[in-house]
Amino acid sequence: MTEATALIHDMATRARAAARLLARADTATKAQALTAAAAAIRADTDLICAANARDMALAEAGGLSPAMLDRLKLTPERVAATADGVAAVAALADPVGGVIDQAVRPNGLVLSRVRVPLGVVGIIYESRPNVTADAAALSVMAGNAAILRGGSEATGSNRAIHAAFIRGLAEAGLPEDAAQLVPTTDRAAVGAMLSAHGLIDIIVPRGGKGLVARVQAEARVPVLAHLDGINHTYIDGAANREMAEAIAVNAKMRRTGICGATETLLIDRAYPAAAALVAALADTGCELRGDAEVQALADVRAAVEEDWDTEYLDAVLSIAMVDGVDGALAHIARHASHHTDAIITGDAATAERFLAEVDSAIVMWNASTQFADGGEFGLGAEIGISTGRLHARGPVALEGLTTYKWLVRGTGQTRP
Amino acid sequence: MTEATALIHDMATRARAAARLLARADTATKAQALTAAAAAIRADTDLICAANARDMALAEAGGLSPAMLDRLKLTPERVAATADGVAAVAALADPVGGVIDQAVRPNGLVLSRVRVPLGVVGIIYESRPNVTADAAALSVMAGNAAILRGGSEATGSNRAIHAAFIRGLAEAGLPEDAAQLVPTTDRAAVGAMLSAHGLIDIIVPRGGKGLVARVQAEARVPVLAHLDGINHTYIDGAANREMAEAIAVNAKMRRTGICGATETLLIDRAYPAAAALVAALADTGCELRGDAEVQALADVRAAVEEDWDTEYLDAVLSIAMVDGVDGALAHIARHASHHTDAIITGDAATAERFLAEVDSAIVMWNASTQFADGGEFGLGAEIGISTGRLHARGPVALEGLTTYKWLVRGTGQTRP
Repeated sequence: MTEATALIHDMATRARAAARLLARADTATKAQALTAAAAAIRADTDLICAANARDMALAEAGGLSPAMLDRLKLTPERVAATADGVAAVAALADPVGGVIDQAVRPNGLVLSRVRVPLGVVGIIYESRPNVTADAAALSVMAGNAAILRGGSEATGSNRAIHAAFIRGLAEAGLPEDAAQLVPTTDRAAVGAMLSAHGLIDIIVPRGGKGLVARVQAEARVPVLAHLDGINHTYIDGAANREMAEAIAVNAKMRRTGICGATETLLIDRAYPAAAALVAALADTGCELRGDAEVQALADVRAAVEEDWDTEYLDAVLSIAMVDGVDGALAHIARHASHHTDAIITGDAATAERFLAEVDSAIVMWNASTQFADGGEFGLGAEIGISTGRLHARGPVALEGLTTYKWLVRGTGQTRP
Repeated sequence: MTEATALIHDMATRARAAARLLARADTATKAQALTAAAAAIRADTDLICAANARDMALAEAGGLSPAMLDRLKLTPERVAATADGVAAVAALADPVGGVIDQAVRPNGLVLSRVRVPLGVVGIIYESRPNVTADAAALSVMAGNAAILRGGSEATGSNRAIHAAFIRGLAEAGLPEDAAQLVPTTDRAAVGAMLSAHGLIDIIVPRGGKGLVARVQAEARVPVLAHLDGINHTYIDGAANREMAEAIAVNAKMRRTGICGATETLLIDRAYPAAAALVAALADTGCELRGDAEVQALADVRAAVEEDWDTEYLDAVLSIAMVDGVDGALAHIARHASHHTDAIITGDAATAERFLAEVDSAIVMWNASTQFADGGEFGLGAEIGISTGRLHARGPVALEGLTTYKWLVRGTGQTRP
């Protein structure tokens, strides 16, 4: 057993013991712990910011990119927002103990499926220190123990936030081992987490494509992850013109760097105002890449084959003309990443066909793909958006961090 | 790309196309296909039995064990039972299209989560040829395409059953690619299935521990599997004596080779009739292995540490004395395989504590662990019993072969 494996084994064993206690904690106790954790984070604002300033100085000296530095940076406002996020999780509905369904068998056995925590959740993330608190709060509220492994550049910030968080757990009488921070920046610890089959129940990677791809490639533990959000908005021939333009612009440009942003616009050849739509998008300053027909409508760069499979996460949009909903469905089946796809149309039958046939975690009608978000979906938060097909799909919050068990209550039945 | 990889890639691509059609098939069409498949299997009884006779002759010449030969053997009665099984699946409630939950957001967006098929299911099994029809029927009824890889000793039998099955699909206008049989017995094809990430959505191994362990160790595709059923029945001090004896005997001895059989009996030191209980079990001819206290009650062999972690699947039972429900919970936490565990007690508070705290897929009160079965649970069938924690737990039938997607219906909403 390597040092990293031994470390993770020990942490996971303590996490399992803590998870057993947490699984029995009632909603009020978990909420109290998170409220106390939020207060502790607020109280430690100066300490956390000071630790972050040291991380920032090292990171700047180490030549971290401005974008990464911005993710790493904490201000008193950002610390307050982190604390607010933890307090908000305390107010969410607790899925644990909920009865999914119940049945009485002809022999009198009473069956019920009840929600129980998953167990031990491993979270592997990058430079944002707020994930330490966010992910721990969601895990604990769903009755799980969390093993947190943040980016090495955020070590001091993460330790300071974690120290405050576990004070909150202790105040409510919950075990501090319910939220453990991996104490080493040794990358072997990540490998040990990914191979901790039977010790860690699920791994949630939170970060860029490189991290998620590594986790998915190496993990022996189930992973809750999304890799790409190559999202499509399809403008049907029966779309309302104003709505089409407003949604297309919002879906692409509101925030270009989030996974719910539209990356490809599909326009029905029967849509009468294609040129105006393309012009409206061009007016936003977005770089447009079109197929030959789109190029005939406006002065846009030619899209190459690779464009249809690219998540730009930037002010770039590929545009293709298609033959109605069939053309859109064919394009989406070939190129979508199964995250979020939308149709804009006034024709309900066409919309229902699109909703039924697009095989993505989220399918929308007359709405912006930018709504693909746990908060917007009313989940109160999200630990991630899953593009996998198993267990949980789309935005995942507390329910996705639980599983169920079958309870069978009898009166002495034996099986014939 | 190796030959096996290319083969599986081609089969999975055709399966994906078939799955897309199947996902849209209505319940009546799927039921009609299975009814026709059942009729085709019945009509082909002679052909299937003749193919099986050739498989049996080769297997006997090859020295297959009597137990394996019995699993391989088909008779007209067994073929009829297989056909009946397929027809029974046609009558099950179709989960596809079911609405899990629905909500209207303050901005007017209407959200719903609806059940959709998983996609492409890979089934890897051993000598029982009936799995060809059982697994294909469950997959198709849940809207999935199946890729079936049976044991090499059953090649002819599987081909004959498969040929009948797909005639049924074709009669209902469903694509034959919805149930494909891997045409080679090359073991590399199994490896190619296990690594077909993104092509096959889930692998279901159906067979002995060796197969399941190999699948779990090698698979890059999610696996729905159970490895061990090290099940406990705990006789509490407050158990009714007659009930305790009847259930203990049934839980161990009704059928010793199934995964729901009890393997370890835990007896509360406060239970007043322990000696009679042990004697009742000894009377059945079961080999008993006890700790020192149990040995003091009856003439039984000494249990060694390994016994507490062994799934005998035979007429062997390990017995330990414990200190009440706390002792039982501690023993189970240490040794259970998270399959099925039961408490026998007249004390409701003790029972509820056991139900809440035992972390297994199925937890029972005053019932025999032998009820751990999809049919007994009212699921109508089962593709397996999952001891994993994610996606589906315990007996898995149609619902476990589905996932969900989020549908969002708007009226032009853009995200602020």
